[in-house]
Amino acid sequence: MNRLERLIAIARKKERVIVGLMSGTSVDAIDAVLVRIAGDGHSKAVMEKLRFDSFPFPDDIRTRIKTLFDPKKANIDEICTLDFIVGEMFAVAVNRIIADAGMKNEEVDLIAAPGQTIWHHPRPATFQWQDQSIATRGTLAIGQSAVIAERTGITTIGDLRVRDIAAGGHGAPLVAYFDWAQLRHPKRSRCMQNIGGIANVTHVPPRATLNDVAAFDTGPGNMVIDELVFILSDAQESYDRDGERAARGSVREDVLAWGLSEPYFDLDPPKTTGRERFGRQYARRMIEKFPDAAPDDLVATATALTIESIARAYERWIFPNGNVDDVIIAGGGAKNPTLLRMMRERLPQCAIEVYEHLEAKEAMAMALIANDSLLGLTTNVASATGAQPTILGKISL
Amino acid sequence: MNRLERLIAIARKKERVIVGLMSGTSVDAIDAVLVRIAGDGHSKAVMEKLRFDSFPFPDDIRTRIKTLFDPKKANIDEICTLDFIVGEMFAVAVNRIIADAGMKNEEVDLIAAPGQTIWHHPRPATFQWQDQSIATRGTLAIGQSAVIAERTGITTIGDLRVRDIAAGGHGAPLVAYFDWAQLRHPKRSRCMQNIGGIANVTHVPPRATLNDVAAFDTGPGNMVIDELVFILSDAQESYDRDGERAARGSVREDVLAWGLSEPYFDLDPPKTTGRERFGRQYARRMIEKFPDAAPDDLVATATALTIESIARAYERWIFPNGNVDDVIIAGGGAKNPTLLRMMRERLPQCAIEVYEHLEAKEAMAMALIANDSLLGLTTNVASATGAQPTILGKISL
Repeated sequence: MNRLERLIAIARKKERVIVGLMSGTSVDAIDAVLVRIAGDGHSKAVMEKLRFDSFPFPDDIRTRIKTLFDPKKANIDEICTLDFIVGEMFAVAVNRIIADAGMKNEEVDLIAAPGQTIWHHPRPATFQWQDQSIATRGTLAIGQSAVIAERTGITTIGDLRVRDIAAGGHGAPLVAYFDWAQLRHPKRSRCMQNIGGIANVTHVPPRATLNDVAAFDTGPGNMVIDELVFILSDAQESYDRDGERAARGSVREDVLAWGLSEPYFDLDPPKTTGRERFGRQYARRMIEKFPDAAPDDLVATATALTIESIARAYERWIFPNGNVDDVIIAGGGAKNPTLLRMMRERLPQCAIEVYEHLEAKEAMAMALIANDSLLGLTTNVASATGAQPTILGKISL
Repeated sequence: MNRLERLIAIARKKERVIVGLMSGTSVDAIDAVLVRIAGDGHSKAVMEKLRFDSFPFPDDIRTRIKTLFDPKKANIDEICTLDFIVGEMFAVAVNRIIADAGMKNEEVDLIAAPGQTIWHHPRPATFQWQDQSIATRGTLAIGQSAVIAERTGITTIGDLRVRDIAAGGHGAPLVAYFDWAQLRHPKRSRCMQNIGGIANVTHVPPRATLNDVAAFDTGPGNMVIDELVFILSDAQESYDRDGERAARGSVREDVLAWGLSEPYFDLDPPKTTGRERFGRQYARRMIEKFPDAAPDDLVATATALTIESIARAYERWIFPNGNVDDVIIAGGGAKNPTLLRMMRERLPQCAIEVYEHLEAKEAMAMALIANDSLLGLTTNVASATGAQPTILGKISL
């Protein structure tokens, strides 16, 4: 059976075994998940997580990758070299997780390789050529998927973000597709609320089609909390472990009001934000503006700011379209009991629960996208990314 | 019919209509060819050229692309942006050539998009990770194939070089695959001799399998001739039009002997060379070494150097494996009658002919590679690139 015939055979299977990869902007580690997927996301895929593992980047490679984030230091030879080196590392991670699961590569149907994003050009560049006016955004990832296919012998679907950009979108969020596929319910209205550094929501109404899905960044997740703890502890702590500081402190209404005056919260979705708005500078401004505030009160207030900005976003852009029955929390914030308690208090009408596959979620999302793209199904969430519906990924046989 | 079903249907056709793209290191233009291919290269493809066109890059884009060739000036934001801009331009060229041929995009099965190479990392970078020792070369191209697929609605096979690198090769020459597929003969031994800036040969013995193909750079093609003419004409001429200067001059045996003493000619293949060896500095050294030589004598001698280095390479590495019946000339050198005359005189035992599709050859080669990769066939020439046999390209549905 040659590789094309193998592709066709894989597409005709009722269930597929897939390795999903993920490597985020923090460049901590390569997350790899081995999943079995029956069916597809459009007709309700059933996903079974067989194994998850996280392979930390060695320090020198992490430093080299992060250097590429700085346009003054990013070197073309280094981009070219790291594209292949990180591709080799993804391949090692794939081979390792399959072996550790007691399986053989021949038993795995697909690899989902989104790549490690190193650059994003958010505003469309425009030019004229051949009587046509052209505008395009851009995104750039390393971790060459051709290397992964070659080293593993497994059909690989890579470069997941570029096609959404090509279709007019922002190339993100990709994971909203997974939220839609896994959470949609005949009767219940659900929000997948991710609380990472930034907090983002995916709203999936009952019987939602892809067009019904809304997804946007609500504002800060753990970022302001983490930065405050870092500064107030003189760099001894990097986050509010178990939400203990927030639990000890009291919310300062004046500080919270100041935080909520940030103009981002009034922008209509789709919208995205990041470290440039809610990073260390923001935390420093809060401390300087309220010099009398006790440290733990500031941490409690930042925690309340995350919850209040989420709740207000729901009230303004989601609840007008109907009640939300379930809010499912993912991301590091799901490990902060004080944050969860505040959310339950603030949104008593919603059932607040923690997502079951906290660590593996994004890698599982990539696996589902690869599964469905292979089948020729739409795999971007156009309503969330601003794109036309399209099929993500490039297939290496 | 969804895009996967369309892919399968295309693969099952007896003949396919394909647009092949090419954009070389000179960044002159996007070459686009519309071809009909019956069968595949392994079983002897029949290719019919329907239309060829060349779309010159606007000066500002050419300058921006060439700036990326300089590692001190290449900027990551510009790499990211130009990846998408050049992808848009490839898409415009595809849509234009199809329309100009009086066809519709729905009638075209595939696009072959090798991309515009902007960087190459020829020596393997090595590192250790997870108890594995890894070494990898690298290559980087722009001209995002996902954009081409999205704008044209046509299945696109892009990123043709990376998989050969992944398989341990140099990512070049890709075109040797086409030479093998198109030239191999049950009884005749053939050389495809390309004479561009650098001259390279693909030798295809009778009944050759892919493993029997040899391909390497013989040395300078037009490069030394062009540089001499440029210097000796005080930058008024850039090449020896119709070989007139070489025809007027006489070959200086002492200069030729000096030229042939260049160590590259003694290296065993596989081997590649370039401007760093036979560029302007080499021409200057020749002029300075022989100050008494008449300009046209130097041009005649450089022409003879090209022919003599080709002939000696044949005598040393090709003829020992059997006679060569046909030498088929491609590249700009095929338009130099003096060079062709010298070759006929030097290799009287071979039938010297000019390839019929001079301009379109490389784009046609890319079209054939896409055609055959789609079918799951090996499309790199491992014996020429130093790789393991593999399937080139990534498929965007």
